[in-house]
Amino acid sequence: MLMNYSSAEQIPSIADILAARQRISKNIRITPIISEPTLNKILGCELWLKCENLQRTGAFKFRGASNAIAHLDELGLDGEVATHSSGNHGSALAMAASTHGRRCRVVMPDNSVKTKVEAVQRNGGEIVFCKPTQQDRENNLQQLIEQGCIPIPPYDHADIICGQGTAVVELEKQCANPDIVLTPVGGGGLIAGSAIAAKALIPGVSVIGAEPAGAADTVYSLEHGKRVDSFPIDTIADGLRAIVGELNFEIIQSQVDRVLTVSETGIIDAMALIWRHFRMVIEPSSATVIAAISEHPDVFAGKKVAAIISGGNVDLEQLPFKP
Amino acid sequence: MLMNYSSAEQIPSIADILAARQRISKNIRITPIISEPTLNKILGCELWLKCENLQRTGAFKFRGASNAIAHLDELGLDGEVATHSSGNHGSALAMAASTHGRRCRVVMPDNSVKTKVEAVQRNGGEIVFCKPTQQDRENNLQQLIEQGCIPIPPYDHADIICGQGTAVVELEKQCANPDIVLTPVGGGGLIAGSAIAAKALIPGVSVIGAEPAGAADTVYSLEHGKRVDSFPIDTIADGLRAIVGELNFEIIQSQVDRVLTVSETGIIDAMALIWRHFRMVIEPSSATVIAAISEHPDVFAGKKVAAIISGGNVDLEQLPFKP
Repeated sequence: MLMNYSSAEQIPSIADILAARQRISKNIRITPIISEPTLNKILGCELWLKCENLQRTGAFKFRGASNAIAHLDELGLDGEVATHSSGNHGSALAMAASTHGRRCRVVMPDNSVKTKVEAVQRNGGEIVFCKPTQQDRENNLQQLIEQGCIPIPPYDHADIICGQGTAVVELEKQCANPDIVLTPVGGGGLIAGSAIAAKALIPGVSVIGAEPAGAADTVYSLEHGKRVDSFPIDTIADGLRAIVGELNFEIIQSQVDRVLTVSETGIIDAMALIWRHFRMVIEPSSATVIAAISEHPDVFAGKKVAAIISGGNVDLEQLPFKP
Repeated sequence: MLMNYSSAEQIPSIADILAARQRISKNIRITPIISEPTLNKILGCELWLKCENLQRTGAFKFRGASNAIAHLDELGLDGEVATHSSGNHGSALAMAASTHGRRCRVVMPDNSVKTKVEAVQRNGGEIVFCKPTQQDRENNLQQLIEQGCIPIPPYDHADIICGQGTAVVELEKQCANPDIVLTPVGGGGLIAGSAIAAKALIPGVSVIGAEPAGAADTVYSLEHGKRVDSFPIDTIADGLRAIVGELNFEIIQSQVDRVLTVSETGIIDAMALIWRHFRMVIEPSSATVIAAISEHPDVFAGKKVAAIISGGNVDLEQLPFKP
């Protein structure tokens, strides 16, 4: 069963993304898109925020997870799903599974922060605690697979990529003819799906990614024409610490126009800017897109920019900016 | 000029609210309305949040202020506007005025919190600091009026009420046939405008208000059939500490079905609940509507409830709940 689901990793098409949208539309939230003229004046462009921080589970991850689960249903692949995650994917998969009446196990390090453990549990997931090492996470997941669980990867899978791409299908209807679609780059699920959807639906659009300089494996890989599988990671953007996936990188290479790096202070200042102008607390990962505009103003000057705010799962007790 | 603008305080009609909507539609944001099935299960009703916390300036107040300024333009009443405010009205009026190219002075106590001072300045308002007494606020405003400024009151004015009512005109298109429209009650601008709009546009709807027990002047006034002009105020909901306005009370008496009181712990728990399920930080004033559902479950059981989340201007460094 696992083989059936995980094989066939061709680059998905816009038809696959539209099929994903159909599949998940009952369960996801159509997130709002908002703009603020006073901020636009400061940034020198017409910025629209696609608010995936207001997606169910607080992140775009719920789109991909929902598509994966709904696709399993379609394929007649029954049974429990499982993943290892210390972040948004585990919580999103738990809610997607419970929405479809399916059990979900999430392998989590035993030092995970309490709010993340609670989020997985609130969403109906069952936690398997492990030691806080990559090896122990993978060992525990492997055991679950051997017990019959279907593993759902966080980004390197066509179903996940297609689910994430549905945000741009909505965006295209909410915000007419943007010059640029801008998203964060971590594992590459969001930008890959966004690029396929944007290039198919928005004539002449550029797709640009934002990556912390302290996790710039994608920029490095693009420059060297080959995906690296390790990189010295040092960034506050906890959602972007992953190495870009293989299928994801292939899509980024062929369909993304540019990936820009941003600094840590740029990220933190951007969180403050969005709080001030929109009264939304966004994740450091999401703030990279705003930092990209501030730190590369020439790329965006005078353009209509649709930026995906990827998530809002922040520890309010440890905000890195001064409100 | 002042007389022209401040006189004629009849109860406005739905036509006045629709005219307000027309007047302000270029400048306000159509705020999203969102729901979360897992929270609905906890609350025992189908709850939809109309997110005025995501309105420009972080509160519904921008609607009323925008309508007042645009109406002045229509009436040919030129000149500066002024108000005294330590909260959302001053910041909203400042942005509404600057959007229309009009100067705005805001009398603020010299002990106002820094973020509120900054918000007024960021939105283009000019601050006149005064001593932190009601008398000195009014004296300073009076001086500005004598210098020719047009005073814009925070709630007790038909233009303000009509502007606030536009939130329900949007809501009616976003959320089909709610059984209940639910809003906080402070000075009464939001609930009065909401009641006029809801009763005109949504057949059979009930309009319910939520008021902190520690600022329940409206409930007390309704019970005694007469508006009181003072009440011992003790609540964390800083936006609801005002005594209900005269015109506002008249509208509430005739068009609002019920006003429910809520406890302080209910308010704080509701802020936490909304953070957990929606990743939005909402003001204590806004949280009263969620507290009303938790504390009066029989009123809402099984109903479709459209609740207006009035604002999101919170001091993140002094959150009253444990995230």
